[in-house]
Amino acid sequence: MNESYIKDVLSKVKNGTMDDSEAFELLKELPYKDMGFANVDHHRMIRTGFPEVIYCEGKTCEQIRDIFVELVSRQEETKCGLMGTRATEKDYECVVKALPQAIYHKAARIIEVPYAKAEAKTLGSVAVVSAGTADIPVAEEAAVTAQVLGNQVSRIYDVGVAGIHRLFDKLDQIRQSDVVIVVAGMEGALASVVGGLVDAPVIAVPTSVGYGANFGGLSALLSMLNSCANGVSIVNIDNGFGAAYTASVINSKR
Amino acid sequence: MNESYIKDVLSKVKNGTMDDSEAFELLKELPYKDMGFANVDHHRMIRTGFPEVIYCEGKTCEQIRDIFVELVSRQEETKCGLMGTRATEKDYECVVKALPQAIYHKAARIIEVPYAKAEAKTLGSVAVVSAGTADIPVAEEAAVTAQVLGNQVSRIYDVGVAGIHRLFDKLDQIRQSDVVIVVAGMEGALASVVGGLVDAPVIAVPTSVGYGANFGGLSALLSMLNSCANGVSIVNIDNGFGAAYTASVINSKR
Amino acid sequence: MNESYIKDVLSKVKNGTMDDSEAFELLKELPYKDMGFANVDHHRMIRTGFPEVIYCEGKTCEQIRDIFVELVSRQEETKCGLMGTRATEKDYECVVKALPQAIYHKAARIIEVPYAKAEAKTLGSVAVVSAGTADIPVAEEAAVTAQVLGNQVSRIYDVGVAGIHRLFDKLDQIRQSDVVIVVAGMEGALASVVGGLVDAPVIAVPTSVGYGANFGGLSALLSMLNSCANGVSIVNIDNGFGAAYTASVINSKR
Amino acid sequence: MNESYIKDVLSKVKNGTMDDSEAFELLKELPYKDMGFANVDHHRMIRTGFPEVIYCEGKTCEQIRDIFVELVSRQEETKCGLMGTRATEKDYECVVKALPQAIYHKAARIIEVPYAKAEAKTLGSVAVVSAGTADIPVAEEAAVTAQVLGNQVSRIYDVGVAGIHRLFDKLDQIRQSDVVIVVAGMEGALASVVGGLVDAPVIAVPTSVGYGANFGGLSALLSMLNSCANGVSIVNIDNGFGAAYTASVINSKR
Amino acid sequence: MNESYIKDVLSKVKNGTMDDSEAFELLKELPYKDMGFANVDHHRMIRTGFPEVIYCEGKTCEQIRDIFVELVSRQEETKCGLMGTRATEKDYECVVKALPQAIYHKAARIIEVPYAKAEAKTLGSVAVVSAGTADIPVAEEAAVTAQVLGNQVSRIYDVGVAGIHRLFDKLDQIRQSDVVIVVAGMEGALASVVGGLVDAPVIAVPTSVGYGANFGGLSALLSMLNSCANGVSIVNIDNGFGAAYTASVINSKR
Amino acid sequence: MNESYIKDVLSKVKNGTMDDSEAFELLKELPYKDMGFANVDHHRMIRTGFPEVIYCEGKTCEQIRDIFVELVSRQEETKCGLMGTRATEKDYECVVKALPQAIYHKAARIIEVPYAKAEAKTLGSVAVVSAGTADIPVAEEAAVTAQVLGNQVSRIYDVGVAGIHRLFDKLDQIRQSDVVIVVAGMEGALASVVGGLVDAPVIAVPTSVGYGANFGGLSALLSMLNSCANGVSIVNIDNGFGAAYTASVINSKR
Amino acid sequence: MNESYIKDVLSKVKNGTMDDSEAFELLKELPYKDMGFANVDHHRMIRTGFPEVIYCEGKTCEQIRDIFVELVSRQEETKCGLMGTRATEKDYECVVKALPQAIYHKAARIIEVPYAKAEAKTLGSVAVVSAGTADIPVAEEAAVTAQVLGNQVSRIYDVGVAGIHRLFDKLDQIRQSDVVIVVAGMEGALASVVGGLVDAPVIAVPTSVGYGANFGGLSALLSMLNSCANGVSIVNIDNGFGAAYTASVINSKR
Amino acid sequence: MNESYIKDVLSKVKNGTMDDSEAFELLKELPYKDMGFANVDHHRMIRTGFPEVIYCEGKTCEQIRDIFVELVSRQEETKCGLMGTRATEKDYECVVKALPQAIYHKAARIIEVPYAKAEAKTLGSVAVVSAGTADIPVAEEAAVTAQVLGNQVSRIYDVGVAGIHRLFDKLDQIRQSDVVIVVAGMEGALASVVGGLVDAPVIAVPTSVGYGANFGGLSALLSMLNSCANGVSIVNIDNGFGAAYTASVINSKR
Repeated sequence: MNESYIKDVLSKVKNGTMDDSEAFELLKELPYKDMGFANVDHHRMIRTGFPEVIYCEGKTCEQIRDIFVELVSRQEETKCGLMGTRATEKDYECVVKALPQAIYHKAARIIEVPYAKAEAKTLGSVAVVSAGTADIPVAEEAAVTAQVLGNQVSRIYDVGVAGIHRLFDKLDQIRQSDVVIVVAGMEGALASVVGGLVDAPVIAVPTSVGYGANFGGLSALLSMLNSCANGVSIVNIDNGFGAAYTASVINSKR
Repeated sequence: MNESYIKDVLSKVKNGTMDDSEAFELLKELPYKDMGFANVDHHRMIRTGFPEVIYCEGKTCEQIRDIFVELVSRQEETKCGLMGTRATEKDYECVVKALPQAIYHKAARIIEVPYAKAEAKTLGSVAVVSAGTADIPVAEEAAVTAQVLGNQVSRIYDVGVAGIHRLFDKLDQIRQSDVVIVVAGMEGALASVVGGLVDAPVIAVPTSVGYGANFGGLSALLSMLNSCANGVSIVNIDNGFGAAYTASVINSKR
Repeated sequence: MNESYIKDVLSKVKNGTMDDSEAFELLKELPYKDMGFANVDHHRMIRTGFPEVIYCEGKTCEQIRDIFVELVSRQEETKCGLMGTRATEKDYECVVKALPQAIYHKAARIIEVPYAKAEAKTLGSVAVVSAGTADIPVAEEAAVTAQVLGNQVSRIYDVGVAGIHRLFDKLDQIRQSDVVIVVAGMEGALASVVGGLVDAPVIAVPTSVGYGANFGGLSALLSMLNSCANGVSIVNIDNGFGAAYTASVINSKR
Repeated sequence: MNESYIKDVLSKVKNGTMDDSEAFELLKELPYKDMGFANVDHHRMIRTGFPEVIYCEGKTCEQIRDIFVELVSRQEETKCGLMGTRATEKDYECVVKALPQAIYHKAARIIEVPYAKAEAKTLGSVAVVSAGTADIPVAEEAAVTAQVLGNQVSRIYDVGVAGIHRLFDKLDQIRQSDVVIVVAGMEGALASVVGGLVDAPVIAVPTSVGYGANFGGLSALLSMLNSCANGVSIVNIDNGFGAAYTASVINSKR
Repeated sequence: MNESYIKDVLSKVKNGTMDDSEAFELLKELPYKDMGFANVDHHRMIRTGFPEVIYCEGKTCEQIRDIFVELVSRQEETKCGLMGTRATEKDYECVVKALPQAIYHKAARIIEVPYAKAEAKTLGSVAVVSAGTADIPVAEEAAVTAQVLGNQVSRIYDVGVAGIHRLFDKLDQIRQSDVVIVVAGMEGALASVVGGLVDAPVIAVPTSVGYGANFGGLSALLSMLNSCANGVSIVNIDNGFGAAYTASVINSKR
Repeated sequence: MNESYIKDVLSKVKNGTMDDSEAFELLKELPYKDMGFANVDHHRMIRTGFPEVIYCEGKTCEQIRDIFVELVSRQEETKCGLMGTRATEKDYECVVKALPQAIYHKAARIIEVPYAKAEAKTLGSVAVVSAGTADIPVAEEAAVTAQVLGNQVSRIYDVGVAGIHRLFDKLDQIRQSDVVIVVAGMEGALASVVGGLVDAPVIAVPTSVGYGANFGGLSALLSMLNSCANGVSIVNIDNGFGAAYTASVINSKR
Repeated sequence: MNESYIKDVLSKVKNGTMDDSEAFELLKELPYKDMGFANVDHHRMIRTGFPEVIYCEGKTCEQIRDIFVELVSRQEETKCGLMGTRATEKDYECVVKALPQAIYHKAARIIEVPYAKAEAKTLGSVAVVSAGTADIPVAEEAAVTAQVLGNQVSRIYDVGVAGIHRLFDKLDQIRQSDVVIVVAGMEGALASVVGGLVDAPVIAVPTSVGYGANFGGLSALLSMLNSCANGVSIVNIDNGFGAAYTASVINSKR
Repeated sequence: MNESYIKDVLSKVKNGTMDDSEAFELLKELPYKDMGFANVDHHRMIRTGFPEVIYCEGKTCEQIRDIFVELVSRQEETKCGLMGTRATEKDYECVVKALPQAIYHKAARIIEVPYAKAEAKTLGSVAVVSAGTADIPVAEEAAVTAQVLGNQVSRIYDVGVAGIHRLFDKLDQIRQSDVVIVVAGMEGALASVVGGLVDAPVIAVPTSVGYGANFGGLSALLSMLNSCANGVSIVNIDNGFGAAYTASVINSKR
C-alpha cells in the first residue's frame, strides 16, 4: 500500500466510480491494524519511508511474534528488512518458530526478518565509531539497524580519545562514509573530536557506560549536546537504534 | 586553500622540488591564523566543508571585525557566505565599517557577509517549523543560518500542537523539504508530531521558552530526546545555528 | 454514617437530649477506626464523597484483608465499590478468602470489592487514552479505578503521536466523554495534542516508560507540566489511580 | 463561527449548492487568521469551548493590541470575555487606546476585554485558596481568569498551614465551591490539607515563592505531585491562569 | 573515663608527680581503640555525652560483635544503653552469642544492649509522629533509638494530613512531649502542620516512601526544608536514628 | 491573650453566663486579625510560644508597618521582642516613623521592636559559629534573631576548616552554649567538625556562598544533611532566622 | 618500544636506509594491537609513562586474560607492574591459569601482575586517608593501585571528622607523604580538613557511601569540589584507581 | 614565622626560660590575626607552604586593603608574591593607594603584590591550555596565579577539539611542562584529549562557558569527572585559581 493507492481511491470517489461510504471503510481501515494490544502502523511507510520497527521490551514474545507476522504480510510493499529491538533470545525463539528466516543479533539484541530479494532497498554508507569495548552493545544496535534498513556499515570500535592515535589511524575509513554515528559513554568526548574532523553529518549516541558522576549517561549526553564541533546532532542515551534510523532517513533522501 | 593544495605540497617534497623545511613552514602555518586572541581555523573548510562561523558572544566588536576580515580574505576558496551568530547591533556597526557588504539579521542576531557571485554554493531545501511566536528568535537563527550556508528555506511558524490544524494545513509545504528543523519550547511536542508525519530527517531544537517547571529549556530537551517518533535528532537548547549547520552538512552531501 | 448524622448528634446536645460526654464519645470514636497498624478513615466519605482506597504496597496481605473487611462493614453507607491498588496476586488470594465477592484486575494490579446493588453510585463517562503498549498497566489502573468508582469508561490505547492518524480516527469517541485521562511515557506529547482537540477536562498521567534521558518519567512529567494546551492538569508519575479518582470527583459534582 | 457552520458548508458541497474549491477556501481560511507574526486560532472555540487567551510575555504591545482587535471582531460568537495574561501596564495602555472597554487587573497582570451583554456565559463557582501574602499575584491570576471566563470566585488568602486555624475558619466557604484552586509556595502543604477536607476537585498551583532549597518552585511542585490526598491535580509552577482555565473547563461541562 | 580524668593527668604533669612521656602514653592511647578495621571512639562520651552508636550496614557481623564487646567493656562510664542501627537479624544472632543481654528490634532494625541498672541515664519525653503505615520502619528507628538513649517515647502513627482529624485527636498527647519527631514521606506536609501546632522543637525526618516524582525522598526533603512553620529542623532522608539522637541531645541538656 | 482566656470563655458558655453567639464572635475573631492583605496570627503565641515574625520580602513597607503596629498592640501578652526579617532600610524608615523604638540591624537585614521592660523573656545561650566572612549576613540574621527572642549570643566568625586551629582556639567558648548554630557555605564541613566536638544540639545553616558546583547552596546543604556527626539538624539554605528560632524553641523549654 | 625507537625509524627514512612503505608498516602497526574486541594501547607508555590498565567490568574473563598476556609480552619495556581494576575473583581465576604470578587483591578488586625484578620502577610516597570503614573498598583500590605503580603507601583509615582527634593523632604520618589521597563518603568533610593541614597535593575521592540525600555520592562530590581548602583536586565518585594513578603521575615527575 | 619558631618557644618552656602564660600568649596570638571581620591566617604558611590568598568577592575594598597590608607585614617570611582573586578595578584602586607596588591583572581579575627580591620562591613550569576565547578569563586566573606563586607559565589558548590540529601543533610545548592545566567549557573534551597525550599531571578546570544544556558549567564538569584518560583531576567550575594553586603545591614538592 502506498500514496498512489490512496490518491486512486480519492479520484474514484470524485468521478463517481466508488461511493463514499465504501471509500471511507477502505481508508479508515487501512492505515493501521488493530491487534487488540497494539495498533500496527502500516501507514508509516507512506509517511516516513520505512516499515514499523518493534520495540520488544515490555511486550510478551507472543505479541512480538504476532506483530512480526502482520508486518511480514506486507513486507513486499516496503522491500525492506523488518526488525525488533531490545529483544531477548527467548523472544527470538518464539519468533523463529513462526518465521524461520528470522535472525538473532545477540550483541545488538535485535531480531531481523530480512527481505532477501534482489530489489531490496539500498541506501548509502554509515560508519559506526565507538569509544570503548563497553559501548559495543549500543554500537552493535546501531550497526545492525543500519544494515537491516539497507545501509553499508563500517565498524570502527575502541578508538576513544584516551589513545587518540587509534582514531587517526582509522580516519580515512570514517571519512568515506555518508553518515557517521559516534557511540561513547563516560565523557563522550569522541563525538566532538570526530565532529571536528569529518564533513559528513555526525549523529552522537551517549551511552550509560561509566559510574559515579556519570549518572546513567547524563555526563555523555550533556557533553554531546554542548559539543563545540558543528554538524553534530544527538539521540537519547543508549539509543543506537534511533541513531541508525536517522542515518537511514538521511541516506534514503540522497 | 583545499585538500589538493596540501597534496601538491607533499608531492613536491617527495619529488624533491621543495625542501622539507619549506614545506613544513607552509603547512604548519596555513591551517590556522594565530590572531593573538584567537586561532582562526582556515583548515576547517578542508575538514568539514564550511568556513568557520564566529560565535560573537564574549568577543569584543573589534575582535569580531578582525576575524571577519581575515575570513573574507579567503572567502573565494569557500564560495560561501560568512556569518557571526549571537551578534548585537553594536557588533554589526563595527563590522559594517570594515565590510560594507555586511548585513544584520536582527531577529536572528546574525551578521552575514554574503558571497554574492554566481558560483555561490547551493545546497538543498530546509523547512524551519516553529511552535509559538516566542520561539521565533531561535527559528530565525536557524533560518538565516541555513540561507547563508546555501539552502532554500521555508518558514512555517506558530503551528504548535495546541491548534494542530494549523500544522496540517502546512504539511505539504513541510514535506517538500530535504531537511526539517523543528523549533519548540514548553513541552516540545511538535518535534514528535512532525517526526511522525514526514520522511525527511528532522532536527529538533528545544528552546528555553516557558516558565516554572520548564527549567530553562530542560522540559523541551528531555521531551525531544525521548521522542516516540523515529528519525529525530536533537541539538542544544536554543541552538538554532547548530540545527541549520547540521541540515547544511546533510544537504551538502546530497 | 454521613453528615446529617453528625448534625443530629450536635442538635441533640443543643436541645439537651444528649449530654456532652456521651456526644464526645460518639463523635471522637466515629471518624476513624484505630486498627493498631492503621487508622481506617470512615470520615473520608463525609469529607470527600468516596470511601478510603487501600494502597497495598508495603502492607502485609493480612493487613490488607482486615482493612477491606472493616471497610465492607460500612459499604452500605457509601453505596460504592471498594478497591486496593498496587496489589499482588498473593494479596488478592488473602482477601478473596475473607470476601469471596472480591475481583482481581491483573493488568491494573487492583483488587475490587464491588457494590453490586441496584442503587450503586453512577457518575459520568471517562475516556482513558494511552500512547503505547507499555503504558497499558498505568492506563488500566486508571480505567479500572474509574469503573469501580462508578464511571463508564472507554479505553483508547496505543494512539501515540508517532502515528497521529490513529488518534484522529478515535477522536469522536474521545470527545463524547465527560473527562479525558491521557496516559503517556517517553515525551508525553499526547497530552498536549489531546488537550488541544477536546473541550473536556484533560488529566495527564506521565509514565516511567522509556529509558536513558527519560529519568524515570521525568521527561513526560516536565513535558505535561509545560503543555501548551490549556485545560490540562497533571498527577504523579505512573499514578493512574490518582487521575481516575480526580476524574470521579469531577463527575460526582456534575 | 461554530461547528454547525462547518457542517453546513460540507452539506452544501454534498448537495451541489457549493463547489468544492469555494468550500475549500472558506474552510481553509476560517480556522485561524494568519497575522504574519501569529496564527490567531478562531477554531479554538469549536474545539475547546473558549476563545484564545493571549500570552503577552515576549510579544510587542502592538502585536497584543492587534490580536485583541482580531479576537473582539468575533467575540459575539463566544459570548465570553477576552483576556491577555502576563501583561504589563504598558501593554494595557496600548490596548486601551484601541479598545476603550479594556480593563487592567494589576496584581494579576491581566488585560480583560469583557463581554458585557446579558447573555454572557456563566459557569459555576471557584474558590481560590492561597497560603501566604507572597502567593497573591499567582492567586489573583487564577481568580481574575476564572472571573473573566464566567465563574463566580471566592478569594481565601493567607491561610497557610503554619496557622491552620485560619483555614478551618474558612472551610465552609471553601466547601461551597464547585472547584477549589490551591495556590502555595514553599512546601506547598496546603494542597494536601485542603485536598483531604473537601469533596470538590482540587487544582494545585505551586508557586516559586521561597528561597534556598525551594529551587524556583520545585519544592512546592514535588510536594503537590506527591500529595497523599486524592482528587488533587497539578499545573505548572506559577500558572494561576492554567488552573483557572482548567476549573472553567470543568465547570462548563456541568 | 571522663573529662576530670584527663584534667587529673594534666595536673599531675604540672606538679611533677607524673612525667610527661608517661602522660603522653596515657592520653594518646585512651581516646580511641584501634581495632584494625575501625577506631572505636571512647572519647565520644567526653565530647558529646553519648557512647558511639554502630552503623551496621557494610560491616561484617563479626566486626559488629567485636565493637559491641569493646563498647560494653566501658558501658559503666556512660550508664547508657548501646545500640547498632541498620542491623539484620543475622547480625543480631552473631552479637547475642557474645552478649546474651542483647535485644533485636525488628521493625526498627536495631540491636540494643541495655544498661539495666537503676542509675541508668534518663532524659525527657519524645513524641514520634508519622504520616502513613509505610513510614513505620523509619518511625520505629527513631522511637527505639530515643528509648535506648533514655527518653520516654509516645508513638502517634498514621495521622497524615489526608485525614487531618486523626492528628487533631492526638494533639494533646503530642503537645505534652519535650521534643516532637515527625516522620513523613510523599509530600511531607505533616511536618509543617505539626510545626504550626506545637511549642516544642520539631525534628522532621523525610522518608523515601512514595513513587514517581518522589525521587527517593527528595519531595519530602524539599518540602520539609521549605516548611512555612518555624521551629522545624531536618535530618537526612530515612534517618530516624539521627532525629532521635538529636532529640536526646536536646533532652540531655534540659 | 492566652490559653486560660479561651478556657475562661468556654467555661462561661458552659455555666450559662455567656451565650454561645457571643462566645462565637469572641473566639472566632481573636485568633487572627484579618488585615485584608494578611491574617495576623495572634493565636501563634498560644500554640508555639513566640509572637509572629514578619517576613518582609514581597510586602510593601506600608504593609510591614501596619503588621508591626498590630503586633505591638499585643506585645504585652508575649513580653518578647518583635521582628521583621529580610527587611530593607527603606522598610525600616517606614516602620520607624510609626514606632520610634524600632531598631535596624543592617548586616542581618532585621527590623527589631524591642520589649524593653524588666520582665522581658529570657531564654538560654546560643553560639553562632560561621565559616567565612561571606557567611556573615546569614550568621548575623541568626545572631540578631536569637537576641531579639531572648537568648544570650556568642559570635564566633571566620573559623572555617581550612584553618582549623582557629576553631580549636574558640572551642571552650562554643562548648559553654546551650545550643550551637553553625553557618557555612561552600562545602559546609564546619557543621560536621563542630558536631563531633560539642555535646549541645547543633543546628546547621547551609549558605549559598560559593560559585560553580555550589549550585546556590546545594553543596553545603547536601553536605550537612549527610553529616557523619550525630546531633546535627538542618534548616533551609540561608535561613539564619529559622535556625535561631529553633534554637529559641529549644531554650524556651529548658 | 619507546620514543627513541620511533625517531630512529624516521631518521632511517630520511637518510634512505629504510623505504617509506616499510616505515609506514612498522609505525602504523606498533602503537596498538588490534585484538578484535579491543585495541591494546602499547603507545600509552610513550605518551603517559605507564602501561595500560585494564578496566575489567563489562569484559569477559577471557578478554581480560588475553589483554594481560598481550601486555605482559612487553612488560620489560615499562618495568612496571600490570593491573586490572573492578575485577571479580572469577576474572582472577581465569588470568592466574595463564599467568601464575598474578595476585588478587580482594578488598580492592584488583588483579596484579607484578614486575618482580630489581630494576622495577620506584616513585614516591602516598598516604591514603579514609573517613569510615565503609569507604575501605575504594581506599584499598587507591592503595593497591599506588603500590602496583611503584609508590610506598601508608594507610590511615577510619579517621573521619566526627572524631577528629583520631586524625590529629595520625597527622605526622600523613605529613610525611609526597601525595595525600583522601577517600570519604557522606559529607566528604575530611578532604577539606586534611587539605587545610598538609603541604602536599591532596587528591580527593568522593565515595557513594551513605544513603538518602547522599544521592549516590553526589553530596561528597559537591562538597569536595567546593572545598574551602586550597591544593585539593577531585576525581570521579568511587574512583580510587584514578586518584592513585594521578598520584603516581605526580610522583613520577619528581 | 615558621615551624622552628614554635618549637623554640616550646623548648624554652620546657627548660624554664619562658613561663607558660607568656608562651601561651605568644602561641595563641600568632597563628592568626583577628581583624574583627576576618581571622588572617599566618599559620597557613607553616601548614601548607603558601601565604593566604584573599578571595575578594563579598569583601569591601577597605577590608581587602587591610588584609593585604597585614599580609605584607610578614611577606618576608614567605618570600612569595601575595594576591587577591575575583578583584574589581575599584578594589585595586583602594589597595594601590596603600601598597604602590600592587599590580592589577585585568583579564584574570587578580591583584598582585609581588615579592621582588632575588630570593623569591621559584617552583616548576606550568602549561595553561584553553579551549576557546571565552575561556580566557578563567585561563588567565590560572596563569597569573601560577606566576605569582613562583611558576614559569606557558599559555596555549584557543586549541579546542573542534580544530584539533591546533592542539597537535602546540603539543611539544605542552609536553615540556611539569604540570598541565586544561581550561574548557561546553563539553570539556579537551581535558580527556590532553590527558591522553601527556605524561604530566593534568588539572582540569570546567568553565561555565556555553548555554542551554550547559547548565552553568555542569556539562564540562561531568565530562571531566568521567574522563576516560588517566592522570586527570578536577577543580570547581571556573576555579582557575584553585587549579594553579594545586599545580604550585605539586611543583613546590619537586
